[in-house]
Amino acid sequence: MLEVYDDAYFMRQALKQAELAGTAGEIPVGAVVVADNRIIARGYNETERLNDVTAHAEIIALTAAANHLGDKYLRGCTLYVTLEPCPMCAGALHWAQTSRIVYGASDDKRGFMRFGRELLHPKTKLEFGVLHEDCARLMQQFFRQRR
Amino acid sequence: MLEVYDDAYFMRQALKQAELAGTAGEIPVGAVVVADNRIIARGYNETERLNDVTAHAEIIALTAAANHLGDKYLRGCTLYVTLEPCPMCAGALHWAQTSRIVYGASDDKRGFMRFGRELLHPKTKLEFGVLHEDCARLMQQFFRQRR
Repeated sequence: MLEVYDDAYFMRQALKQAELAGTAGEIPVGAVVVADNRIIARGYNETERLNDVTAHAEIIALTAAANHLGDKYLRGCTLYVTLEPCPMCAGALHWAQTSRIVYGASDDKRGFMRFGRELLHPKTKLEFGVLHEDCARLMQQFFRQRR
Repeated sequence: MLEVYDDAYFMRQALKQAELAGTAGEIPVGAVVVADNRIIARGYNETERLNDVTAHAEIIALTAAANHLGDKYLRGCTLYVTLEPCPMCAGALHWAQTSRIVYGASDDKRGFMRFGRELLHPKTKLEFGVLHEDCARLMQQFFRQRR
């Protein structure tokens, strides 16, 4: 089968990261950073394990990407994340001048969009809704099991 | 001389952290976290040295405080920071449910207040303007030298 490196492909890779988080008992959110059609960093939510509120999938992926690039700016990079970033992560992605952000499921309660796109860098392109049903289902299953 | 442990005292400690940042060639912002009138964590901006956009004074201080407490929530803690936090830091302080935030100088361009207090946790008390002239002067001097 020919693999097509499109947004759905990379979101599936982010979903794999989210599943790793869920298996570890963390809220299942995953992220990958892509440059030139290649994944240069991965991350999933580890707030419980690391005892650190900042250990969101996006933060872990973006710091890993910065390490990989030797540059703290993610210019030319796309960050894929299964859930709409929170304001903290949107702010971090702003500082990193991330070229493009693609998220899956929306987060009406905790997502940054409640505060507006201005939380992102003006040059950042934004896409959302990619595989959003798969992304949302993972979250719903997780919270259903916890109830 | 009797030392009074008031907001000005702890902001002076945050200013000392900011000076360390400035000496290291970093934008001079410093923070301390205080619980029961005792400093439990310190941090200063290290984005250049660590090559990491998330290495703001507040993030470093709050993760250090979480390590110290063995708890990722900063309930009962006050974070003092010399400059108005950015949205990323405000979001992190939200997740940490920080009881109180005191900042010195305002940051009209990059500060979270542009997006409103809702970026903070509803239970977080907020104070600002403490030693704001000293805090702002440090920033002004830094940028003047760089021009």
